[in-house]
Amino acid sequence: MLDVGIIGASGYTGVELARILAVHPEVRLTVATSRQYAGRKMAEVFPSLAKRLDVLCENLTVDELLPRADFFFAAVPHKTAMDIVPKLLAAGKKVVDLSADYRLHDQRVYEEWYQPHSSPEFLAEAVYGLPELYRDQIRTARLVANPGCYPTSVILALTPLLREDLIEPGTLVIDSKSGTSGAGRSASVANLYCEVADSFRAYKVGGKHRHTPEIEQELSLAAGAPVRVTFTPHLLPISRGILSTSYATLTPRGAKADIFALYEAAYKDEPFVRVLAPGEQPATHNVRASNCCDIAFALDHRTGRIIVTSAIDNIGKGASGQAVQNMNLMQGFAEGTALMGPACFP
Amino acid sequence: MLDVGIIGASGYTGVELARILAVHPEVRLTVATSRQYAGRKMAEVFPSLAKRLDVLCENLTVDELLPRADFFFAAVPHKTAMDIVPKLLAAGKKVVDLSADYRLHDQRVYEEWYQPHSSPEFLAEAVYGLPELYRDQIRTARLVANPGCYPTSVILALTPLLREDLIEPGTLVIDSKSGTSGAGRSASVANLYCEVADSFRAYKVGGKHRHTPEIEQELSLAAGAPVRVTFTPHLLPISRGILSTSYATLTPRGAKADIFALYEAAYKDEPFVRVLAPGEQPATHNVRASNCCDIAFALDHRTGRIIVTSAIDNIGKGASGQAVQNMNLMQGFAEGTALMGPACFP
Amino acid sequence: MLDVGIIGASGYTGVELARILAVHPEVRLTVATSRQYAGRKMAEVFPSLAKRLDVLCENLTVDELLPRADFFFAAVPHKTAMDIVPKLLAAGKKVVDLSADYRLHDQRVYEEWYQPHSSPEFLAEAVYGLPELYRDQIRTARLVANPGCYPTSVILALTPLLREDLIEPGTLVIDSKSGTSGAGRSASVANLYCEVADSFRAYKVGGKHRHTPEIEQELSLAAGAPVRVTFTPHLLPISRGILSTSYATLTPRGAKADIFALYEAAYKDEPFVRVLAPGEQPATHNVRASNCCDIAFALDHRTGRIIVTSAIDNIGKGASGQAVQNMNLMQGFAEGTALMGPACFP
Amino acid sequence: MLDVGIIGASGYTGVELARILAVHPEVRLTVATSRQYAGRKMAEVFPSLAKRLDVLCENLTVDELLPRADFFFAAVPHKTAMDIVPKLLAAGKKVVDLSADYRLHDQRVYEEWYQPHSSPEFLAEAVYGLPELYRDQIRTARLVANPGCYPTSVILALTPLLREDLIEPGTLVIDSKSGTSGAGRSASVANLYCEVADSFRAYKVGGKHRHTPEIEQELSLAAGAPVRVTFTPHLLPISRGILSTSYATLTPRGAKADIFALYEAAYKDEPFVRVLAPGEQPATHNVRASNCCDIAFALDHRTGRIIVTSAIDNIGKGASGQAVQNMNLMQGFAEGTALMGPACFP
Repeated sequence: MLDVGIIGASGYTGVELARILAVHPEVRLTVATSRQYAGRKMAEVFPSLAKRLDVLCENLTVDELLPRADFFFAAVPHKTAMDIVPKLLAAGKKVVDLSADYRLHDQRVYEEWYQPHSSPEFLAEAVYGLPELYRDQIRTARLVANPGCYPTSVILALTPLLREDLIEPGTLVIDSKSGTSGAGRSASVANLYCEVADSFRAYKVGGKHRHTPEIEQELSLAAGAPVRVTFTPHLLPISRGILSTSYATLTPRGAKADIFALYEAAYKDEPFVRVLAPGEQPATHNVRASNCCDIAFALDHRTGRIIVTSAIDNIGKGASGQAVQNMNLMQGFAEGTALMGPACFP
Repeated sequence: MLDVGIIGASGYTGVELARILAVHPEVRLTVATSRQYAGRKMAEVFPSLAKRLDVLCENLTVDELLPRADFFFAAVPHKTAMDIVPKLLAAGKKVVDLSADYRLHDQRVYEEWYQPHSSPEFLAEAVYGLPELYRDQIRTARLVANPGCYPTSVILALTPLLREDLIEPGTLVIDSKSGTSGAGRSASVANLYCEVADSFRAYKVGGKHRHTPEIEQELSLAAGAPVRVTFTPHLLPISRGILSTSYATLTPRGAKADIFALYEAAYKDEPFVRVLAPGEQPATHNVRASNCCDIAFALDHRTGRIIVTSAIDNIGKGASGQAVQNMNLMQGFAEGTALMGPACFP
Repeated sequence: MLDVGIIGASGYTGVELARILAVHPEVRLTVATSRQYAGRKMAEVFPSLAKRLDVLCENLTVDELLPRADFFFAAVPHKTAMDIVPKLLAAGKKVVDLSADYRLHDQRVYEEWYQPHSSPEFLAEAVYGLPELYRDQIRTARLVANPGCYPTSVILALTPLLREDLIEPGTLVIDSKSGTSGAGRSASVANLYCEVADSFRAYKVGGKHRHTPEIEQELSLAAGAPVRVTFTPHLLPISRGILSTSYATLTPRGAKADIFALYEAAYKDEPFVRVLAPGEQPATHNVRASNCCDIAFALDHRTGRIIVTSAIDNIGKGASGQAVQNMNLMQGFAEGTALMGPACFP
Repeated sequence: MLDVGIIGASGYTGVELARILAVHPEVRLTVATSRQYAGRKMAEVFPSLAKRLDVLCENLTVDELLPRADFFFAAVPHKTAMDIVPKLLAAGKKVVDLSADYRLHDQRVYEEWYQPHSSPEFLAEAVYGLPELYRDQIRTARLVANPGCYPTSVILALTPLLREDLIEPGTLVIDSKSGTSGAGRSASVANLYCEVADSFRAYKVGGKHRHTPEIEQELSLAAGAPVRVTFTPHLLPISRGILSTSYATLTPRGAKADIFALYEAAYKDEPFVRVLAPGEQPATHNVRASNCCDIAFALDHRTGRIIVTSAIDNIGKGASGQAVQNMNLMQGFAEGTALMGPACFP
């Protein structure tokens, strides 16, 4: 039985981690931190957990945390994470960090998009936690940088095409739409029910979203050359779910390829990636509350473009589900433990 | 490994059964019937099940069904169910019937609200499948009549009060609100997104809903005397969830009772019923996609009434979750198998 | 052309007032106050108003306000309103107050449910602004207390029955459900999209909501005797709309009455109250963004109760629409000016 | 007073036409047809219209229709429209056709995407009813082809850029998202509440949507050369609203242009097109139930692309609102009559 802690338990990724871990047969959630709710039971803050999880929200220093668990999920914002993670590692703990702090390999890129990095020495060590690409490295890692939600949906969708040189990287346009849980659980007028419901809008338009360099890092690795993308996020009036629609011009090689076969080959043994039959399209309700990523593509013969659509649950495969998948790999548990439940439809 | 069949797999209770059974370690879904989708894989009809369930929708006679499983969930409409269930029982199968056909003990009452009953001889044998009330009988039953969604929310909320004579039964007013999955998965203008979203209305007002006699049967048994209620259902713009608000005048005994202690005593050992702390109120999102029923009460000292609120997922504890709970009991499995996952929040 | 001001323009009732006044041919919105958004155009705060309304949000004292308009809508919280209204009246302005400060005729009742009243001398003068009941008094009033949203839906539904002694007042149970705009436009975790969407819950259960004494005041006047009710509000996952379901036992007189004819007689000449044909039920989408109140009733012969359902838009007829209706009457404009648009469906 | 008829009154564009016309001071709705609801009042089919509109749904031949009105809105599906429109014109009536039948100038293109055209002689005469582009022609037209919803959002957004040669037409990628009312009011499983709510998906991916040639026709005219686009529609879980996100590479000329000034110049006198301030983004709730189109753009300097976002109400400016705007022009009424109400927010 592994003793596990959640640092930053009062956000939506925190409660989703708790939801998954509550039925994980190999772990015990022994500690959960929250400044805001310190002293209250996690099941009081989130009544969905009542009779399922008996853990207190505590406001603890890292030193106080250390004896309480052997494995930690850091579900705190970037910048806060890099203050905590090195101390956990120094004490011999394993960590899945859900923030952006260790996702970018290049310190300069990180500092251009975020702020100065206080522990760049771990950037090389941290493994980018997308098991479908880096499963072997994750198995032996002590620090896994859990991918961002948008990047997860995009990288899984485009990597097979870029690896095989089937699309022109310079033509990539990525139009992503996310549910509102991605905006977090802080009081704000912009995220009130009446502001979000029955509406739809783009935000951070013009290459301003911080997931852009993360997407570009992984697509560049897949392409074997630098890739720049136009990435536009939108806010959906749903709680959970991301759908990314990616556009690119086919290379001559791509125009002749059997792309369906290629996707099938890439993902047929993956338990959490499902390539849809030609003509089918992913819908976010088919991945809601699951760890799945559904992918489809279509060709626009009139313009020579491919359109790839991919759907995940932004706090499932896009955050907490993937974090547990990474823990399972790091600990040698069966990879799908506690994650095999089908999506909640309807 | 128990071989299990779903008769009527293409509705919302069918897909919910499949979702739960897909992670049930003791059973194997070996057959699923659907006239409409015969010949297609269930995971094609419901892509949420892809890579999780490999079963075909088939159009089969009862005779063809018999060799295919040992335990059946009948998820077909009332009247259809009573054509099938006797044959399953005659062949030695165990059955959880999700329709209304075997819920009412009194044939006359059934025929007053539905139509003539073709197998009334099973009405006495069938056990009303509310484990919190009839656990022992369920364990040894071969036919369990799975309760209706509204009745489940109401009976669990009011039974403790009626058993102890704390409320005047004649004053009972029950105002229930249900998500739209309760309306089924048939094409209809009334249930289109644009007709349901952003709206709210009552239906079958004036004691016309067929769940009325079922509620009255069980409340009468709890009270030890005939109970008549005013029951009004409403349609919520959500997919899953029921909240019932029940009103009654306290008896003199009720006015002096420690009602919280009573509820606690009734349900403290129940894995799926949660009595909320005074001041808290249930919300349907705290039970969504779970098998839980959350209950709270408040006293209106100005009018001498008690208000009891109770929340379930109408296709979870209100249908498919409870059906699996019943199967677990009937088969001697741990009662919570495949049902202990916390609600999907947010 | 009447110069009109909105005090407290940045809430949902403020923007709804602006939406209606923008097409009102007899008035000009000359001033709007908002502490939070002072200095910004109202159409910047609410981009729906762009190219339709050119007014600035200002942070003004009452003295600064006086020369700017002749008629004021006070759309500020209770307690704030009573600091402002007397000064407006003293300067000869007419006022529709959307807060609760002048709705209750009895100072003691006000102070029991709210706090000490600083200008009780106006309680007798203020007219309760429900035109269907007090049209003549409103025409000549200088201060109209605009009714609460829940009370509007309930009083219009029950007054005809109480006036004719058709129901037992002591049996009244009122189960109301409101859209989230009623909770206001302040940042709060409880009203975030992810907390409200796909969910439903009761609040202030047990006779605690401050609209209770307002409902009781008007129902008592209709009944000619003190009436106490059990009133339970609920939160709907919609932006706009209230549906109230009211239950009462019929008196012997009520059991024999032609209730439909009575409702028809009460409301057939009312432009904003619609009595539905027997068998029909109101839905909030049929009154959304309108000033209408739809009413239906059904009899439960099994229990001798009547169930009355009534729907309004909580910020339309329940607040800003009714406020403009009152202004129209106070100014001698045609009562329906700017208010006759049908509901926005779908 | 103009006598107006709606042919095909029982769909969502029909009820939206009725909602707008009910407050139009210059017209009288004298006839409405519906096969499905023949004999019922329109206000029975759509209770939102009760006490506002007293017109019957009738099942009439074109000959029966002729004496009943002088101006017709044809709100029937394509193919049905071209059977009716020529007869109306022959009888001297003016027509706004909301179908696709007269939108495409090139018969071959029409027949490639739809079916054989039975009255191609009117293709040259019909005016494409986008007033911002063709106001003068509309004023004198007897047949206006009301634009499609997606094309309206896209053409208004991109025309200023193409006219000035600021973007490379060959790089255009258009990612559009529409509310569900666009799918019509026919019974279907795919559009049930539980299938659409809380979900999001693309459809007709790969250049298959029939609005593609309509978009290309108008963009080609703006560019002065043939334009081909990749156009992908998506289904939003909202009732009303379209947001289109359009991507293109800037030409050298575009890279130097003052694009904001250009948009301002193009639309500053337009009552229904609003160019947002730099940094702002349109949201569908700011145009809901209005006739407005909100447009914003952002530059992605890293990739040399411009991203233009545009929002309309798909059944407002995208259908019925624009149809009334066209009627106003054709009849010499003030262009904004009955259309100046701000959007319904929240």
